[in-house]
Amino acid sequence: MKPLEGIRVLDLTQAYSGPFCTMQLADFGAEVIKIEQPEIGDITRAWLPVVDGKSPYFTCINRGKKSITLDLRTEKGQEVFLKLAETADIVVDNYRGGIREKYNIDYEKLKKINPKIISASLSGYGNWGPMKKIGAFAQMAEAYGGLMNLTGFTDQSPVKSGNSAGDLYAGIMLVYGICMALYHREKTGEGQNIDISMMDAVFQTLEAGIINTGLTGKSPQRMGNRHPSGGPYNCFKAKDGWCVIGTPVWAQWHSLCRVIGKEEWIDDPKFANHKCNKQNEDEIDAQINEWVKDKTRQEIEEIMAENKITFAQVLDIKEVMEHPQTKAREMVVEVDDPSFGKIKMQGVPVKMSLTPGSVDASAPGLGQHSEEIFAGIGLSEKDIREMKENKVV
Amino acid sequence: MKPLEGIRVLDLTQAYSGPFCTMQLADFGAEVIKIEQPEIGDITRAWLPVVDGKSPYFTCINRGKKSITLDLRTEKGQEVFLKLAETADIVVDNYRGGIREKYNIDYEKLKKINPKIISASLSGYGNWGPMKKIGAFAQMAEAYGGLMNLTGFTDQSPVKSGNSAGDLYAGIMLVYGICMALYHREKTGEGQNIDISMMDAVFQTLEAGIINTGLTGKSPQRMGNRHPSGGPYNCFKAKDGWCVIGTPVWAQWHSLCRVIGKEEWIDDPKFANHKCNKQNEDEIDAQINEWVKDKTRQEIEEIMAENKITFAQVLDIKEVMEHPQTKAREMVVEVDDPSFGKIKMQGVPVKMSLTPGSVDASAPGLGQHSEEIFAGIGLSEKDIREMKENKVV
Repeated sequence: MKPLEGIRVLDLTQAYSGPFCTMQLADFGAEVIKIEQPEIGDITRAWLPVVDGKSPYFTCINRGKKSITLDLRTEKGQEVFLKLAETADIVVDNYRGGIREKYNIDYEKLKKINPKIISASLSGYGNWGPMKKIGAFAQMAEAYGGLMNLTGFTDQSPVKSGNSAGDLYAGIMLVYGICMALYHREKTGEGQNIDISMMDAVFQTLEAGIINTGLTGKSPQRMGNRHPSGGPYNCFKAKDGWCVIGTPVWAQWHSLCRVIGKEEWIDDPKFANHKCNKQNEDEIDAQINEWVKDKTRQEIEEIMAENKITFAQVLDIKEVMEHPQTKAREMVVEVDDPSFGKIKMQGVPVKMSLTPGSVDASAPGLGQHSEEIFAGIGLSEKDIREMKENKVV
Repeated sequence: MKPLEGIRVLDLTQAYSGPFCTMQLADFGAEVIKIEQPEIGDITRAWLPVVDGKSPYFTCINRGKKSITLDLRTEKGQEVFLKLAETADIVVDNYRGGIREKYNIDYEKLKKINPKIISASLSGYGNWGPMKKIGAFAQMAEAYGGLMNLTGFTDQSPVKSGNSAGDLYAGIMLVYGICMALYHREKTGEGQNIDISMMDAVFQTLEAGIINTGLTGKSPQRMGNRHPSGGPYNCFKAKDGWCVIGTPVWAQWHSLCRVIGKEEWIDDPKFANHKCNKQNEDEIDAQINEWVKDKTRQEIEEIMAENKITFAQVLDIKEVMEHPQTKAREMVVEVDDPSFGKIKMQGVPVKMSLTPGSVDASAPGLGQHSEEIFAGIGLSEKDIREMKENKVV
């Protein structure tokens, strides 16, 4: 049994943040009904390479969902949506602020017809405040939220995360907001509204940056791959790629000196503690660079493991997919897709012993489940035909 | 009312990933009892500047929790822990694999004395697989999980995220795992075990990278702040700091040409579509750089808003803290701390209408709640005194 079995989600989201949230609900058993614009659908369906109206991008984050089409800009579309909402547990959107009201499907409206409903909104900057009507891509929230300024090297441009951090933090936090609301509803019968913004979500991830800035009046700055108070800690170029070596624990420093052939540094006052090392980190890093450059990451990993020194290989995606740890954790799953054939995607990282999640199906075609879902709320074949003729579905 | 009121969490975590998870449980009303090593406590208590045995770092992620000390390496400590576990709903740890078994407090043991208990473990690489016994800092998981290789510029070193992404993704996902388990338990009475690794959590955030690598056999590479398939999209240096300008929507490109004084580019076949622009993005970016360099970010923001072009200011933490949107969303809260006085920290990003979270108290002193909690499980003053003498608490 999956923990969200029996839960029906009306999914008004597209692109990445919202779909990433509802993907996790689907992995854990919710019936996620994706409601898409007739003929067009989720914008990511068009991201190349498209096969049968589906892109790989769309496919990997809409796995296990159902799809219906419905034009919410029409009165008929809104009427059908409200009928669906009577049967739903959760409604999720990632519109800009104000769009739900425009479509007459905001929480106040929904709760009149279904008091137990849980309504959830995810947007760039949230549904109130001076920026509420501004749309945002993940990178914008990463910039306004303070993360981008912290990523990269001191004397260079800020750098965006290699993934869509703004979408991701907000999307995952919304999953827990929804689950908390479900838990509360199970105990009390009460539904509620949830609002999250990507900018707020990013801001919450800045660790001690906020408290320290409040205490000192000074914002922390970018420092590449180095550590603010100790050294060495950096990313080094090995023979076959990059790796990370650090000595956050002082005993590791002495081990590292021996490993890189600088045993004399152990008693050198220049390297007497983390603070000294920090002042001399260019010299230390140069020596480590010299030592790693003609060894493979695997060779270095073995030496570091033997000497208990903090280490990591920087792996590219193919290398992670083939890594024994990834395999042991079943983090790459294979799914049959009618358009693409066998495809690989991420597995489920939250491993629950009694109610495990799983990836059971690929992503739906546009409107693939329209008839099934509409029949379920009592629409006749004639109703559906008329809606098609009027381009409502 | 908060959604997790009445839920007792035994919190065996330290540093960042685990405490960030349980911080969110505390914000939403759970009684989080932090169990710390006598005399030493959470390692981050010692991170400078320390005031009264508390660091700002420790303070901001342990807000609203209780603290007791207990040496789990001793038999007596384990015995007391099991007594506590009889009264608990959730146990969370972020040990390396195998430590819970060593302390005789693994899930199999706990469920015998409390079948409804939810047990949750967070570690670098998870509790099974060849890497299960290896400890990890966030950056290691970011490297092994494939994210670090994607962050940074093509011809330079990979870059770690400006926050502790490995800790964060796993910590937040574990919050939803715990809430799903609570929801399931509320319906069925059944507890269970949850396991998550930072490497798996990071891997799940790589969007379409996995499906595309599976289809093409080629891993995506770093591309700084640029977009893989369209342009322009980059980070530019304005008069008073950095900003992001992009034209993911084609109509925005024509607006941008007018704004930067290059109206002639609109009909130039060199810039006929996103693909052409991608080939000529150095030339485009140079022109934008020229245009932004003598304007402030605020001036540019206004021009871009008027012309509906995707834009963001890259804000440092102080700027985000003072931003009107941050204020409207109450994302900076002020808390009274007995050691530091008034301190500022992040608010609650998941805005629930009926059961909102809030930050109600600062972080506890080491062992501040020992007597209250131990008395609650029937230990006498004499018992506690003896435990103190034997350094069990």
